[in-house]
Amino acid sequence: MTDDEIINAWDDICKVLNKDNDDLKSDILNHVGNKWSLFIIHALGIDGRMRFSNLQKHINGISQKMLTKCLRELERDGLISRTVYPEVPPRVEYELTPLGRGLLVQVTPLWYWIANSVNQFKEARINYDKSQ
Amino acid sequence: MTDDEIINAWDDICKVLNKDNDDLKSDILNHVGNKWSLFIIHALGIDGRMRFSNLQKHINGISQKMLTKCLRELERDGLISRTVYPEVPPRVEYELTPLGRGLLVQVTPLWYWIANSVNQFKEARINYDKSQ
Repeated sequence: MTDDEIINAWDDICKVLNKDNDDLKSDILNHVGNKWSLFIIHALGIDGRMRFSNLQKHINGISQKMLTKCLRELERDGLISRTVYPEVPPRVEYELTPLGRGLLVQVTPLWYWIANSVNQFKEARINYDKSQ
Repeated sequence: MTDDEIINAWDDICKVLNKDNDDLKSDILNHVGNKWSLFIIHALGIDGRMRFSNLQKHINGISQKMLTKCLRELERDGLISRTVYPEVPPRVEYELTPLGRGLLVQVTPLWYWIANSVNQFKEARINYDKSQ
């Protein structure tokens, strides 16, 4: 984004950062900041459609309860879709919606930047705390 | 980012999303998700160096206490710098560091996308709640 694009973008952003949208905003940011949500979005973004058991195998250390909770929240916000196939036993598959794909695309550069800036953050904090 | 770039980026991201960095991560995300922090970063990004009183005029509705708190947190994480000029009365000016400029550049596209997707999120949520 150029400087002009950044300035223009903020007109739209400020409209969303008002009180009416506080709940929605914090829920969306919850997906952005929740490690497990990110791992689910990432797994579905790379491997496409997946079953619950397959997701659980894929995401190291996630409990069944946490996976269930995250999938439900992501589905509620329209980021993933859940399809039930009428088989015996019923087969349930999850996949990213276009909205979820959009979030993955937007969130990856931010997280990549955070990952590569971690040492700078740590150093800044040590210096600040020393100076106080 | 292409699909390949997204996959590669996640190798680095996963290293940061471990327990060691949980505090740091949540603090950085606090800046990303905190309306006032965003407004400060945005104001300094657009207008450059600013004094406290000028920032307060610029950011509609922020209290002196909240501005002080946010500036301190942003300074501690190395996102803004604070310069004191030995005048009478002393002049104090704030500006973005290169790290802070980086955060502005990374965060703007994500927030712009959230701002433009708000209606899709709301609609998804209404549909989900109806179906339950």
